[in-house]
Amino acid sequence: MAQNIYDNPDFFSGYSQLPRQVQGLSGAPEWPAIRAQLPDLAGKRIVDLGCGFGWTSRWMREQGAASVLGIDLSENMIARAKGSTSDNAITYRTADLETLELPERTFDLAYSALTFHYVRDFERLARMIHRSLAPGADFVFTIEHPIFMAATYPRWIEDEDGRKIWPVNRYAVEGERRTDWFVKGVVKYHRTIGTTLNALIHAGFTIKAVEEFAPSREQIRETPALEEEIERPMMLIISSRR
Amino acid sequence: MAQNIYDNPDFFSGYSQLPRQVQGLSGAPEWPAIRAQLPDLAGKRIVDLGCGFGWTSRWMREQGAASVLGIDLSENMIARAKGSTSDNAITYRTADLETLELPERTFDLAYSALTFHYVRDFERLARMIHRSLAPGADFVFTIEHPIFMAATYPRWIEDEDGRKIWPVNRYAVEGERRTDWFVKGVVKYHRTIGTTLNALIHAGFTIKAVEEFAPSREQIRETPALEEEIERPMMLIISSRR
Repeated sequence: MAQNIYDNPDFFSGYSQLPRQVQGLSGAPEWPAIRAQLPDLAGKRIVDLGCGFGWTSRWMREQGAASVLGIDLSENMIARAKGSTSDNAITYRTADLETLELPERTFDLAYSALTFHYVRDFERLARMIHRSLAPGADFVFTIEHPIFMAATYPRWIEDEDGRKIWPVNRYAVEGERRTDWFVKGVVKYHRTIGTTLNALIHAGFTIKAVEEFAPSREQIRETPALEEEIERPMMLIISSRR
Repeated sequence: MAQNIYDNPDFFSGYSQLPRQVQGLSGAPEWPAIRAQLPDLAGKRIVDLGCGFGWTSRWMREQGAASVLGIDLSENMIARAKGSTSDNAITYRTADLETLELPERTFDLAYSALTFHYVRDFERLARMIHRSLAPGADFVFTIEHPIFMAATYPRWIEDEDGRKIWPVNRYAVEGERRTDWFVKGVVKYHRTIGTTLNALIHAGFTIKAVEEFAPSREQIRETPALEEEIERPMMLIISSRR
């Protein structure tokens, strides 16, 4: 079973105060880049893997989705997601993506934001998602970028010339990474970009786009703290099709 | 026109002594990983873009290729390549990949090793290569990995804990990078992995595999100096199909 850090009270308390959790999609700078990868949602049957508080599930219904199934490991998050809607076409439930099985050929879009880097067995998950999609359906997701999470000790460093650098090491050593984020010992799984893309291709997906998110000039003007995202990518957005 | 650093006498003299230039393919640790991406070559019409001394062009003919067209910007390299074979099915010529045009639907495989990071306009080149291939043909190439070349000053650093790290910055700032390699001011062009893959997809290619080369345990046992390649990828191998 995956580590359920989101139900740790200290983690949940800190996490809930992130701009993207308080403000929803507008608090996530990568949202416009994700949205550009999404198909027209009207009439679509959607599964949202790692739905959290359900911000995206609800937005998808507003865009005309026929139904949204939101899944998350965290009971806290699913409880809050359920409390935030009375829409019968949205279903929320808890499940572990390491073992989840969805019915075959059931969805027109599988979506996931910043969740799969908590999953140990992405090959299995990609095959299961492929089976759960109708032919021609889309699979769009974001993960932490492997440049961001590869190093033994990832953080900004100032080099001897005063440049801000992000360290990379152990890039080819895939597997568990432990990091401190609100609490100590959050477990993530590092995979190279190649491993992630090849898992999709082996599962039967066609790669449509790969975006290594960086903020636009306009976003940096509005939120100067985003400027450091130019130096190294924190997120990877992948769009694929069954 | 692309910078023709390979015809700089100091560069050429240093470059010619690299193990991969003296020993040929067996001197390139990534060769087994590239070979795993190549289709059966028997009867294939092949173009080798950035063929250098022609080691790969000649090997491809030994594998049964029907013909190989080797292209390189460097007159020195093409002269030596021509001198190394009397095989009429191998043609070598100089050309600049920034402006090269190949006849349409002519090749069954386009191959290139460590050349495209010298090309400013990869979008144009990808479209031209797509046109030059027969439907179903393969396009397999290697480039320097953007993690390797993104930083203002790329080199190993020992961090305060004694770990070897590779710095990344300016990852989202694509374009010219100047580096010192045998001579000062070798010009390369940094592109993100996403930009390279999306250029292929826009040109009409299907991505078949993406490998961020790392040496095997056995290679490291034989050549311990390769161990540092585990820390950060130096090369990207991309396999695609028209």
